[in-house]
Amino acid sequence: MTGATLQAIRYQRGSLEIIDQLLLPHETLYIPISTLALGHDAIKTMKVRGAPAIAIVAALTLAVVLVDSTTIASGRLSTAQGAVAFIEESLEFLKTSRPTAVNLFDAAHKLAKGVRAAGAVASASGQDVVNKYLELSEKMLEEDVKDNMNIGRFGAEYILKVWKGGDDLRVITHCNTGSLATAGYGTALGIIRALAGQQKLTHAYCTETRPYNQGSRLTAYELVYEKIPSTLITDSMASALLAQNPDKIAAIVVGADRVAANGDTANKIGTYQLAITARYHNIPFIVAAPSTSVDLNIASGKEIHIEVRPAVEVTTLRGPVVEVESIPKGSNDVVFKTSNNGQDVVAETIAVAARGIGVWNPSFDVTPAELISAVVTEKGVVLKEDGVQQFDMKAFLTSH
Amino acid sequence: MTGATLQAIRYQRGSLEIIDQLLLPHETLYIPISTLALGHDAIKTMKVRGAPAIAIVAALTLAVVLVDSTTIASGRLSTAQGAVAFIEESLEFLKTSRPTAVNLFDAAHKLAKGVRAAGAVASASGQDVVNKYLELSEKMLEEDVKDNMNIGRFGAEYILKVWKGGDDLRVITHCNTGSLATAGYGTALGIIRALAGQQKLTHAYCTETRPYNQGSRLTAYELVYEKIPSTLITDSMASALLAQNPDKIAAIVVGADRVAANGDTANKIGTYQLAITARYHNIPFIVAAPSTSVDLNIASGKEIHIEVRPAVEVTTLRGPVVEVESIPKGSNDVVFKTSNNGQDVVAETIAVAARGIGVWNPSFDVTPAELISAVVTEKGVVLKEDGVQQFDMKAFLTSH
Repeated sequence: MTGATLQAIRYQRGSLEIIDQLLLPHETLYIPISTLALGHDAIKTMKVRGAPAIAIVAALTLAVVLVDSTTIASGRLSTAQGAVAFIEESLEFLKTSRPTAVNLFDAAHKLAKGVRAAGAVASASGQDVVNKYLELSEKMLEEDVKDNMNIGRFGAEYILKVWKGGDDLRVITHCNTGSLATAGYGTALGIIRALAGQQKLTHAYCTETRPYNQGSRLTAYELVYEKIPSTLITDSMASALLAQNPDKIAAIVVGADRVAANGDTANKIGTYQLAITARYHNIPFIVAAPSTSVDLNIASGKEIHIEVRPAVEVTTLRGPVVEVESIPKGSNDVVFKTSNNGQDVVAETIAVAARGIGVWNPSFDVTPAELISAVVTEKGVVLKEDGVQQFDMKAFLTSH
Repeated sequence: MTGATLQAIRYQRGSLEIIDQLLLPHETLYIPISTLALGHDAIKTMKVRGAPAIAIVAALTLAVVLVDSTTIASGRLSTAQGAVAFIEESLEFLKTSRPTAVNLFDAAHKLAKGVRAAGAVASASGQDVVNKYLELSEKMLEEDVKDNMNIGRFGAEYILKVWKGGDDLRVITHCNTGSLATAGYGTALGIIRALAGQQKLTHAYCTETRPYNQGSRLTAYELVYEKIPSTLITDSMASALLAQNPDKIAAIVVGADRVAANGDTANKIGTYQLAITARYHNIPFIVAAPSTSVDLNIASGKEIHIEVRPAVEVTTLRGPVVEVESIPKGSNDVVFKTSNNGQDVVAETIAVAARGIGVWNPSFDVTPAELISAVVTEKGVVLKEDGVQQFDMKAFLTSH
């Protein structure tokens, strides 16, 4: 039996708490978000990360504020018109927390549109407008999690269908696609959660995911949190792992930043290399993504521009300072150096490369459809037709 | 024009200096080795690393001591018998610096045997014995470097022969196989040096080589030192690099820990994954190794046992602390934090993974011969016969 699913966002009407991702994986602290200022700050200072998560935290921050007694006492919600104005102002303010977040802008637009329509009804009260907002914002959280759970379910089903091995079924994943990157549950990690929940998974492997270590920091954290039997490997160990376990690894599952109309997939750097080794070892390579990540305007991966990021992300690393004397030979249960009478963990940035070396640091790579076995969406599993090297994402999405 | 070859070991009769590898890549300091105690300490504290380098530093330490005026004044070298005894005692002492170093023991055995034979000649003087020792120990350094230069020459020749691209010829390498891992010049990095020396190389790429970062620390250092145009990538970026430069990357070149009789090669973890991507992208994958690394007693890689190392090598990293304010956006010319009035660079160990996660940390992997295009030795290039998936290392070595 595995533990409860990690909730990066804890919401019930009137109350919102989020995990402070700045402290992860070394400290787990939920911080309450009870005002617009706190929600704005959490996004701006990156206590919450990941495009869907940011949009939902902003939306739910306002949901909490709308049922708060101070807001009600202010009288600003007493008429439909007043409530619409208050909601629009608040959303505009929240949008300034991350001016480049497309999902956040989309969500704010959708919410504002919904409450304006509710407020335009002749008989509408302030409470009607507030209720509409609560309904819409709460639905965003629910639907995002529901979509991920469906991805998990479809992905697990697919893996179990194509798996020809025995009871020892293991999966490799890359980067972080879990509760910490989404509104909850996760995409590729959602598939791992679903398999574990069905008692079908014996082991999960997560790659370190250089250079930003989202695998060793975040995915490893989620797997430990949920007590899923799991092992961290460096990115370069995946092939050796596959060679040594030819009949145990059922699949490599990854997320997607963007999926082109033909199924070519842009995802975290290193994804393409994993797809190549999956092909060489003849195991399924599975992309998990909500249908909103499929961009039918892009015919193939050739049209995807790859952002190149700063050198220092490769040449330096930040983390809590370890008491060297505490390092045991066989485990990684290290002790952190603290200051302020043991209150604060000391963090430092260290250099891990020779100075002066040039660095190439693309954030993503593109995996061609020919190396992908299946694209798992919340609507179902997309497969290639026999003998065809590409997916027809449009045909799938229009028929589902 | 590239700079002079990095010399990790600087020797001329009567004088020995080595780079302090504990300070690399962040500080370049040559330390003089003028006594047995200093040579012993340099090996014991890992100021010098790499099996061939350790053996040669030990041998040359004694060579320096034998021509030192204090030693001569002691009178211990005045007879052949006395000189042999002094040399044997000294070698025994040097051997205790690293009791597990097979190369060191082999070298000491060879040197002791040589001087005993010289001392056994009826007319031999103490000086004759000393001269024999100087000849044998100096030849070790020379031959190791010469072998590496031959590997470089043969490897460069092979790459230029099979290269079908234009003037923009680039090579990828993994881990550190350069002057810092050998007596000088290097094996795989020797091939890169040879190409650069012939003005045939436009760019070298080195992988970071997780988890111990020998690529980003040592190979990057050597490439910067010699002004070879070069770029660091993480291990997972190699495939994206190959995909984006289909007509520029001429080869991936790596070293070898051990080569089996059929050509299967054990080398630093991640080598196998690079061989797979080289095959997928249809570019040559070249193993560079002195013939002493070929073990004809091992029929295939299946017989090679892979050491699994401690988790903390993956979950923690040590390096000089960077002044975060100094980090420029576009480069990695960071400033280090210092203590003791700016005299000492402050180094720390930080955690880079979630606590509690299991870790698999194999130090090597085995690349099957079928993925290897050529094994380059100091005796020439070993190739597979048409239609055969294995090398015949024995036939090559016995005929060369």
